[in-house]
Amino acid sequence: MSRNYHVAIVGATGAVGVEMIRTLEKRNFPVGKLTLLASAKSAGKTAQYNGQDVTIQELREDSFAGVDIALFSAGGGISKQFAPAAVKAGAVVVDNSSAFRMDDSVPLVVPEINGDDVKKHKGIIANPNCTTAITLMALFPLHREFRVKRIFASSYQAVSGTGAQAIEELRSQVNSVVGGQPVVKKVYPHQIAFNVLPHVDSFLDTGYTKEEMKMQNEGRRIMHHPTFKASVTCVRVPVYRAHSVSVSAEFEKPVSLDKARQVLGNFPGIGIVDDPSKNEYPLPLNCAGEDDCQVGRLRLDCALDNGLSFWVSGDQLLKGAALNAVQIAELI
Amino acid sequence: MSRNYHVAIVGATGAVGVEMIRTLEKRNFPVGKLTLLASAKSAGKTAQYNGQDVTIQELREDSFAGVDIALFSAGGGISKQFAPAAVKAGAVVVDNSSAFRMDDSVPLVVPEINGDDVKKHKGIIANPNCTTAITLMALFPLHREFRVKRIFASSYQAVSGTGAQAIEELRSQVNSVVGGQPVVKKVYPHQIAFNVLPHVDSFLDTGYTKEEMKMQNEGRRIMHHPTFKASVTCVRVPVYRAHSVSVSAEFEKPVSLDKARQVLGNFPGIGIVDDPSKNEYPLPLNCAGEDDCQVGRLRLDCALDNGLSFWVSGDQLLKGAALNAVQIAELI
Repeated sequence: MSRNYHVAIVGATGAVGVEMIRTLEKRNFPVGKLTLLASAKSAGKTAQYNGQDVTIQELREDSFAGVDIALFSAGGGISKQFAPAAVKAGAVVVDNSSAFRMDDSVPLVVPEINGDDVKKHKGIIANPNCTTAITLMALFPLHREFRVKRIFASSYQAVSGTGAQAIEELRSQVNSVVGGQPVVKKVYPHQIAFNVLPHVDSFLDTGYTKEEMKMQNEGRRIMHHPTFKASVTCVRVPVYRAHSVSVSAEFEKPVSLDKARQVLGNFPGIGIVDDPSKNEYPLPLNCAGEDDCQVGRLRLDCALDNGLSFWVSGDQLLKGAALNAVQIAELI
Repeated sequence: MSRNYHVAIVGATGAVGVEMIRTLEKRNFPVGKLTLLASAKSAGKTAQYNGQDVTIQELREDSFAGVDIALFSAGGGISKQFAPAAVKAGAVVVDNSSAFRMDDSVPLVVPEINGDDVKKHKGIIANPNCTTAITLMALFPLHREFRVKRIFASSYQAVSGTGAQAIEELRSQVNSVVGGQPVVKKVYPHQIAFNVLPHVDSFLDTGYTKEEMKMQNEGRRIMHHPTFKASVTCVRVPVYRAHSVSVSAEFEKPVSLDKARQVLGNFPGIGIVDDPSKNEYPLPLNCAGEDDCQVGRLRLDCALDNGLSFWVSGDQLLKGAALNAVQIAELI
């Protein structure tokens, strides 16, 4: 790229927004000007970008004059309200919320999987759900080789997926338990410290949560695979950062471990960590802060004919959110 | 029962052994005499039983004179070495280890499911793996109604399943992280605090762990269902007590949620906690110390034709171990 871009980050003070700033720095994104936008209560604060203080401004409809690329990560409501204004001002929006993900006119993109879909954008490109993105990083190369029919998956999702307040909630609850004090709940309906909650996002009438259905709904769009099925249980665990997913996948074609390792090994953005004899397998703690996802515990599934089981971990603030958004921006 | 029994507990100082003592008290088991056995290094210590001090003795081959019922929970090696001596001395052994679970001459029993199998014993009765027992408490009533073909399951296992040292390891690692000190690992190969480990028990050549295959192997014996298949991923989580399991189950017959709720509601030892609109679902924190397992998140599986997904939690020291063992003893 020869020119520099005026980049805006909407939700600059959130857990993902902070990682977006770091990711722009780390990848030497050609930023000519950086505009940081947040709610009125954060306006006037500063954030560091490449060693310089950038003052955070209040997000308004007229905030996008001259902006080339607007990275949104402030929830679906904010995206629905302000993304059209950004597009009208001439910006391309990369939206990390769920607001536009199922909109047929909006490409939903994981660059390693369907980067070409970016070309079809009409002003907005959606960034997928974090658990979906991490799972597909392992599933898609296997799908391309063996054609996936359906998966059964259970997630182990870090509190940072909920945001900065949830990180603080886990920290303060752990301190309360350690100190023998009563536990205070604000973000989650139940104690998350030393507990697991089979509840991420809101419940649908079917008994699944919205989060659980994203794997199937978004997976179909990203993999261009309209009959893909995914039965998922999403669970919050007391981990600060990086999601993990346990997957049993059924394929149309016969599978082999050698071939599976080969296609995973050749796929960008994912590393194989799989030597049980040395106690080596993906761990959320090892993925925190890492761009690449990790896959391991790869084995022939014992309850499926053409089946593989695996375990995938990835930093959902990066691959699931900030990194993926900046990678999309790089494609624009 | 009109007579009182001489009961011995082997491994009386372990996490399960302590619960066995509490469970004998709580259920008013007709104990005439209680003998507590452990390794030489615990001998001479005392434990409380119904308000009285009982001195712990060193486990030896001649420890079982006059013992009617010996509850073993000191690992497979100890069971293999000492259970035959207990049987020879005239005791009936209820063994919590994996030593005899796959031995065709040894009944493997969950009292609510296959209590009648106890009658076939030849001196030893095996107590199933804790994760298996908890899962089957929800699966079996559904199986009896709809005939299960296979399940896909992922576990969220508490550290107390590993034993008292693992409880201490989580506690000390959390303190280290909170205090900014280096984390010490002794029991687990990786940090368990603020992490999850897709590794419970040792690895087989297939890539599954022994723990993961217990669900299928033990499930077949307990449910008298030799073609039952189970693809399981077992994961240790930073929870002190009570295991949880996410299950997608495929059945031969058409399923209905109403019927599923009815058969689960009528089954002893399991409670339905399933009102998502009120954020009610089973939580390990709520099951800790409770005899009954809890099932919830019940829904028609979206990737199976005759499928149900559910989430089950239970105190693995109780239903998975001590309670189940004492329930077996009550059947003898």
